[in-house]
Amino acid sequence: METGVEEAEASRPLPIARIVAPRSVAVVGASDDVGKFGGRVIHYLLKHGFPGLILPINPNRATIRGLPAYPRVSAAPAPPDVAILAVPAASLEAQIADCAAAGVGACIVITGKLAEAGPEGAALQDRVLAIARGAGMRLVGPNCLGIFNPVDRAMLSSSLALEEEGYAPGGIGMVSQSGALMGTLLSFGRHHGARFSRCVSVGNQADLALEDFLAFLVEDPATRAIGLYIEGLKDPPRFRALLQGARAAGKPVFIVKAGRSEAGAQAARSHTASLAGAFPAFEAICRDAGAVVMEDPQTLVLACDAAIRLPPWPAPGLGLAPIASSGGSTVTFADMMPGAGLRLAQMSDATRAALARWMPETHVALPVDTGSFHEGTSGDGLSDCIRAFMADPDVGAVVVPMTTQPDMAGRTSLFPPLARDGGKPLLYLMTAGAVGDASRDVMRAADFPFFDRMSDALAVARALDAAAAGRAVRIAPVRPECAGPSPALPRGSLTEGEAKRLLAAYGIPVTREASAPTADEAAAAARRIGFPVVLKGVSRAVVHKSDLGLVRLNLRDEAALRTAFAEVAAALECAAQGASEGCVVQEMARGEAELFLGATQDSQFGPMVLAGAGGVLVEFLQDVAMAPAPLSLSGARAMIEGLRVAPLLRGLRGRPPADIDAAADALMRLSWLAADLGPRLAELDVNPLILRAAGQGAIAVDARATLTEEVTT
Amino acid sequence: METGVEEAEASRPLPIARIVAPRSVAVVGASDDVGKFGGRVIHYLLKHGFPGLILPINPNRATIRGLPAYPRVSAAPAPPDVAILAVPAASLEAQIADCAAAGVGACIVITGKLAEAGPEGAALQDRVLAIARGAGMRLVGPNCLGIFNPVDRAMLSSSLALEEEGYAPGGIGMVSQSGALMGTLLSFGRHHGARFSRCVSVGNQADLALEDFLAFLVEDPATRAIGLYIEGLKDPPRFRALLQGARAAGKPVFIVKAGRSEAGAQAARSHTASLAGAFPAFEAICRDAGAVVMEDPQTLVLACDAAIRLPPWPAPGLGLAPIASSGGSTVTFADMMPGAGLRLAQMSDATRAALARWMPETHVALPVDTGSFHEGTSGDGLSDCIRAFMADPDVGAVVVPMTTQPDMAGRTSLFPPLARDGGKPLLYLMTAGAVGDASRDVMRAADFPFFDRMSDALAVARALDAAAAGRAVRIAPVRPECAGPSPALPRGSLTEGEAKRLLAAYGIPVTREASAPTADEAAAAARRIGFPVVLKGVSRAVVHKSDLGLVRLNLRDEAALRTAFAEVAAALECAAQGASEGCVVQEMARGEAELFLGATQDSQFGPMVLAGAGGVLVEFLQDVAMAPAPLSLSGARAMIEGLRVAPLLRGLRGRPPADIDAAADALMRLSWLAADLGPRLAELDVNPLILRAAGQGAIAVDARATLTEEVTT
Repeated sequence: METGVEEAEASRPLPIARIVAPRSVAVVGASDDVGKFGGRVIHYLLKHGFPGLILPINPNRATIRGLPAYPRVSAAPAPPDVAILAVPAASLEAQIADCAAAGVGACIVITGKLAEAGPEGAALQDRVLAIARGAGMRLVGPNCLGIFNPVDRAMLSSSLALEEEGYAPGGIGMVSQSGALMGTLLSFGRHHGARFSRCVSVGNQADLALEDFLAFLVEDPATRAIGLYIEGLKDPPRFRALLQGARAAGKPVFIVKAGRSEAGAQAARSHTASLAGAFPAFEAICRDAGAVVMEDPQTLVLACDAAIRLPPWPAPGLGLAPIASSGGSTVTFADMMPGAGLRLAQMSDATRAALARWMPETHVALPVDTGSFHEGTSGDGLSDCIRAFMADPDVGAVVVPMTTQPDMAGRTSLFPPLARDGGKPLLYLMTAGAVGDASRDVMRAADFPFFDRMSDALAVARALDAAAAGRAVRIAPVRPECAGPSPALPRGSLTEGEAKRLLAAYGIPVTREASAPTADEAAAAARRIGFPVVLKGVSRAVVHKSDLGLVRLNLRDEAALRTAFAEVAAALECAAQGASEGCVVQEMARGEAELFLGATQDSQFGPMVLAGAGGVLVEFLQDVAMAPAPLSLSGARAMIEGLRVAPLLRGLRGRPPADIDAAADALMRLSWLAADLGPRLAELDVNPLILRAAGQGAIAVDARATLTEEVTT
Repeated sequence: METGVEEAEASRPLPIARIVAPRSVAVVGASDDVGKFGGRVIHYLLKHGFPGLILPINPNRATIRGLPAYPRVSAAPAPPDVAILAVPAASLEAQIADCAAAGVGACIVITGKLAEAGPEGAALQDRVLAIARGAGMRLVGPNCLGIFNPVDRAMLSSSLALEEEGYAPGGIGMVSQSGALMGTLLSFGRHHGARFSRCVSVGNQADLALEDFLAFLVEDPATRAIGLYIEGLKDPPRFRALLQGARAAGKPVFIVKAGRSEAGAQAARSHTASLAGAFPAFEAICRDAGAVVMEDPQTLVLACDAAIRLPPWPAPGLGLAPIASSGGSTVTFADMMPGAGLRLAQMSDATRAALARWMPETHVALPVDTGSFHEGTSGDGLSDCIRAFMADPDVGAVVVPMTTQPDMAGRTSLFPPLARDGGKPLLYLMTAGAVGDASRDVMRAADFPFFDRMSDALAVARALDAAAAGRAVRIAPVRPECAGPSPALPRGSLTEGEAKRLLAAYGIPVTREASAPTADEAAAAARRIGFPVVLKGVSRAVVHKSDLGLVRLNLRDEAALRTAFAEVAAALECAAQGASEGCVVQEMARGEAELFLGATQDSQFGPMVLAGAGGVLVEFLQDVAMAPAPLSLSGARAMIEGLRVAPLLRGLRGRPPADIDAAADALMRLSWLAADLGPRLAELDVNPLILRAAGQGAIAVDARATLTEEVTT
């Protein structure tokens, strides 16, 4: 009854804000025994001071924890906003039906062994969902750990993390596809003084999904930074739009995505397919929308917290200024920075002068060892130097890696005001064990973050830098002149010539070529094009021509060309398996460097472009950048300049720099090609794009493409 | 009075074992006030139960902490084994002189502002050292934090780390050039239940150096693993020998070396100089001797502890088996593994069968989510699966990333016996905050390591794998046939021809070549060698020939050669700056791949060889391996096979594999060349060495070298 469902949904959709902060909660399976799921749920509601009405549901008890109990939800005096179900899978369907009948707004289903356990569980989950949909009742879960909302003291969860005392409200909003991981992170964050707004474990997302709660957090006034643990998306385009919304709202988003390493494990079939695995596209979309993808869930929480409780990292690409009284700790911290993608700041003259007031000129350098301060000055000197770093335009953040020392706690109290006044992050590291606890307590009391690990502080600094890049202004892509439309092209693998015609239609320079059915025609074509030339054997059946002897480069004269023609024609006969398209003669392009450009269609996010090291390097150097299409010229240029091979393009050892502008223009045009063809373009590779010296252009020398359907103009 | 000093040293050298475990200790500057250095030293001696005689030294007090005090050390009834001095720099010289006169065995000098503070302090340090040397008295420090010896309850330090209660004795020996960092690590380690044997802060190493204490720890029966924090070595060859000694003694050594990032910062002048910075050579020496160089001092301590308290990682290169009840935590852990240089294990059929007893066949995969176990079986199932992994030949260690869950502490107690019985490391991760403390206490009580961070467990797994590689049997280098001696060669930069004669003398194949003063002679040489040929202009003044138009490849006939000769001769005239050596004609070598091979002289460790990606790649890919010369053939092969470009050598996309054996032979021979020439060879590059298809050899196509002195045969 499709219509009935629609009506019911329209009549009773409890908004997410009410699910997260319900006025009344039924606990199905409530118990006095905190060893049971339902016992813990009611215990935690009480323990954390839930201000609304609690309805324990238990057919065998008149009261639970002193509250009147009811045999079923439908027996309660009024339907609650939310029912929490932690019942065995076998009784779930009946309980959900009762909730639906009673008029419950939403069920939080902690019960597991549903879709995640196999086909039987999936069928049960479908039946449960159908009951809920039929009644317009929302579901969180199943197989979730519920909702954690310190802002409204609504701890709707059985997570053991709620054993901790006093989760004070704060600004970190989280959505997690792993409940156990989320609970762990709450407890981990609490150790550091991090505070949360609303955290939701979404479980199997039968009804409400991560995207729904993300949408809520983007709008939620209590939430100032968002942390996501994602296994897979239900609605990728909506997810992308929500990240853009968070960016517009000034809320940084930090994400850990499970399955990163799967991308690496995918068999390398053809270039683009092996490089365009799900994770790289996901990461590209997040970067494009200003969100920060991290590796480690623990540092994810610390990054969210730092983004809220520390002043902002001013701009992307700035350096760090480590300063402490232990040379050993500052130097080892500085040594770990390059591996984390971070660098030391370049001190300004003013900063150098400030340091020179406190220490011998010979010791003025980063990292700063305050042990070299003139005797008796280290307290004032430390503050003064930190103020100088805070004012230094190349400093992104100051790092203080404390080691055991006299009056650690007293020294610690210096830092929060210095960070506040300086207006930049100060990353305070307390790497000792219990002997550092007094210092940690000072920071908790000052509402200031601290780090226990050098590696944590490094990961957070990297994330804050990336968040600054995420905030930076983006130039909107604008279609260039002479970009499209595509010529008519057949379905399937294109020949090199067809692929190049497609490129040329978007204004991407390609090598001149002429087909050459005979040696005489090849010679004539070569005379027109001008020696030296390239001879290629063409077949739709061959992907890697050079491996099969079908490419002969640098043919300098007619004799060489005729010899090569005989050889290539023979090889083509052999390799083409009846799909020979004959030989072509091409212009021999030379340049300073080469790149690989690619376009592909991500199954979740649509058209994407890639740029990477050219030639055979693309196969084993993992030096590929990806971005959603279309791109602005500056976006294309940033992709290329971020490659590890970029120094090669800029001209090594006095060689002329390559024409990066022309390469960026070609990539930008390729991005419009990919955007226009959309899912009709399965993949397109330009390998190599040869870059001539700066100002002299770039040219596509080889190209291949696959279309999923015919393109008609 | 050189002789007098020698005599005094001979008559009174207190052995390090007695310095580390003295029978009597004088505390100069002793005080009742624990706010003062000397007050803390005496407080910590008493607090940690020093069993020997304590002599407080203070001119103004009759007793301190209830012990009889003396105005100076020489006034004590008998000279103590050790005096600890935490006096101002101004009074240090007089106090040292008094200790020397009194017959003290060794002084631990905590006092700072000596050599590390500038020339004035350095002069004072020299005078203090001269006094000590003159009396045969040993010095630890100055500018150190002393010695920490829980085995003998001798805590001879003012480190605040001694505020912690009860450092039980254990097997970790440490030597650190940073006292504050060491104190921090002791406290950090204690949190994890790690236990130490003897830890020494060596400070400025005026007399006793890191190498001296390392020698002691290698022999010390209480020490089972060694951690070193190194800023710079005093005696590199002895250090190397001591690492080899530790390896022979079965004691793993883990090292953090400060200044790693300097290597990256060095300006890239010529290849070898930029690649052969101090850190890479240090790391190569350590790896060769079986020691493990790490980045992070915190994980250094955890690695030492894991090496002692866990069963050994069986063999290098094995995989990890993550298993836990949270899919989120096991998957994110697995995702972080490749970045840490680790991989998942490949399950054996027996392991798969064991897992299939507890979970649906469809879920049998690594990482294991015990949430997918059949209902009601997770306790037994977890143990059973861990047993299966322990027995699996591809498993190096089992990892259990716990998240918040019911009965965490009870579950935790399962693991120590499983690790003991299984005989492999089990890395137990408790990532929650305070809610995990009961589990941490279970592990402390069971004397079993735990980790608070995924990143810590990853770094330790990597270190244990590296330690297993360090234990592996090494094949001793044996000089091959036809290796040397060197021909007579001049001092300074060699020409390509000279460098190649040197290579040829060690049996490394080089391209045939002939000098060609005129175009006619070039043509005659080319006919002898056979077309195609290479023409090069030679000058001692030119390092990078191809940048200046002095190299012409692939000249196919005499006409092409003559044209090229005219151009190259003109370019040479221009570039050679009067140092022209004329043109040479060379065989044109072709192959499947190319490598860079190099030899250099490390200022600390002597002759080293390098191998890396060939051609222009060596400039910006940091894909270079280094090892001390000479090398065995298997050592040379391992270097090449460990390169990131190795997949290219093995044959990508059906290309024939390159002759890695021949490249390894060339590298091994180059290592003997480097070892024979020793410091006379400043550097030698072979770039490229062209590798033909497997079985067809490798050939040095270009080479350059610099000698610091003339070589005569």
